[in-house]
Amino acid sequence: MKTEAFVFDAYGTLYDVQSVSKITCEKFPRHGELITQVWRLKQLEYTWLRSLMNSYRSFWDITEESLIYTLDAVGVESDAATRAQIMDKYLHLDPHPDCHSALDALAGVPLAILSNGNQGILDTLVENTGLDRKLEATISVDKVGIFKPHAAAYELVEERLNVKPENVVFVSSNAFDACAAKNFGFRVAWIERVTRKAMNREVDEAEHVGPSTMFKLLRMQMEDLGMEPDYRLTSLNELVALR
Amino acid sequence: MKTEAFVFDAYGTLYDVQSVSKITCEKFPRHGELITQVWRLKQLEYTWLRSLMNSYRSFWDITEESLIYTLDAVGVESDAATRAQIMDKYLHLDPHPDCHSALDALAGVPLAILSNGNQGILDTLVENTGLDRKLEATISVDKVGIFKPHAAAYELVEERLNVKPENVVFVSSNAFDACAAKNFGFRVAWIERVTRKAMNREVDEAEHVGPSTMFKLLRMQMEDLGMEPDYRLTSLNELVALR
Repeated sequence: MKTEAFVFDAYGTLYDVQSVSKITCEKFPRHGELITQVWRLKQLEYTWLRSLMNSYRSFWDITEESLIYTLDAVGVESDAATRAQIMDKYLHLDPHPDCHSALDALAGVPLAILSNGNQGILDTLVENTGLDRKLEATISVDKVGIFKPHAAAYELVEERLNVKPENVVFVSSNAFDACAAKNFGFRVAWIERVTRKAMNREVDEAEHVGPSTMFKLLRMQMEDLGMEPDYRLTSLNELVALR
Repeated sequence: MKTEAFVFDAYGTLYDVQSVSKITCEKFPRHGELITQVWRLKQLEYTWLRSLMNSYRSFWDITEESLIYTLDAVGVESDAATRAQIMDKYLHLDPHPDCHSALDALAGVPLAILSNGNQGILDTLVENTGLDRKLEATISVDKVGIFKPHAAAYELVEERLNVKPENVVFVSSNAFDACAAKNFGFRVAWIERVTRKAMNREVDEAEHVGPSTMFKLLRMQMEDLGMEPDYRLTSLNELVALR
């Protein structure tokens, strides 16, 4: 099988969504970590719920809705300016340490992003972090008005890049995304950022299982959906073997 | 507006899904509470993901998939017999303390369940807990092969009971379900089992935010989806005012 393109998920895969914790901890020292985890969990929930209810809103709007939900539920006061400063981090997320080197090593093969993010915030993020010079396309689900894991989102890859799914290596560290991409027909590399062994050990050694461990338990382990990715990698740098 | 029927969500609304913790804590003393919460969170996630991926499986199957996921991620060994004993609790969930009295007080108005559960397990649960004598219908989404919050699930009420959505009071303690039901066109009563004030206090007073508080933060607070239920009640017993 020829690899005609590598297509990457953005949030969690190329970009570290946990990097918002710097600003949430600065603004809310007592509850920064809790806010970071509930926010991210709820943000994805809202993409699924709105997709199922046929009531799409942009990822930016959902990110704000889920932030407001989180701050209210946790019970901290916030004003619009504070929330705007927190939201702004989504335009300046830290790339994962393996992001730039991995993309460099794949140069020559078309590289693209397929993300839930709306086009405006994706383009800004990609430019702010210098990925625009490495990517052939930044594809947003916004065009179809429904989020992953709906097939309409994954269909955008062939439409935009003109490559058949079986010739695409789709890369995600989000297990649900990796499973759905496999189910759709891509070759899939799942980036296992927290191995099962490390997860088990973290739970075993925890005196109290807190929000960060809950997040990893819920979102950073391979799903039991009967849809197995083709490759399990622990770093984006291992993708070079699939070019 | 005439109330021609009360339609209830089952899991979490009439039945206490947290009542599985008795058996999970018995089987896994160190991690029973964690398993209970991750399992329920993942179970609902799977209903949403499978609905979006067009890869429906029955709620019973999803309940088992999500249990296996949870036990593996937490890192406890289990055999099929142990899992079967845990799963069996879904056929014998405890009704919430306000369940029987509330249904009795509404007698005379048609009462029904609309649930994600498949018909077989719902019928068994309803019979095991004596609700069969109080309900006119137990409606399962299984017939349409897609879970709440998809509209096709809510459409089953009119089809089965022959009442217009605006004449139905739909009752749920699951916030996403209450929002989606409102969005669909029902009159909606949300059972606020953990008030915002109690939630805020729980977080404020927690030395460590654990799995149970995480669950409440994620699933027992009103969603910020711009879809407001008509009534916020703290107990099913308050429904009598809406008959």
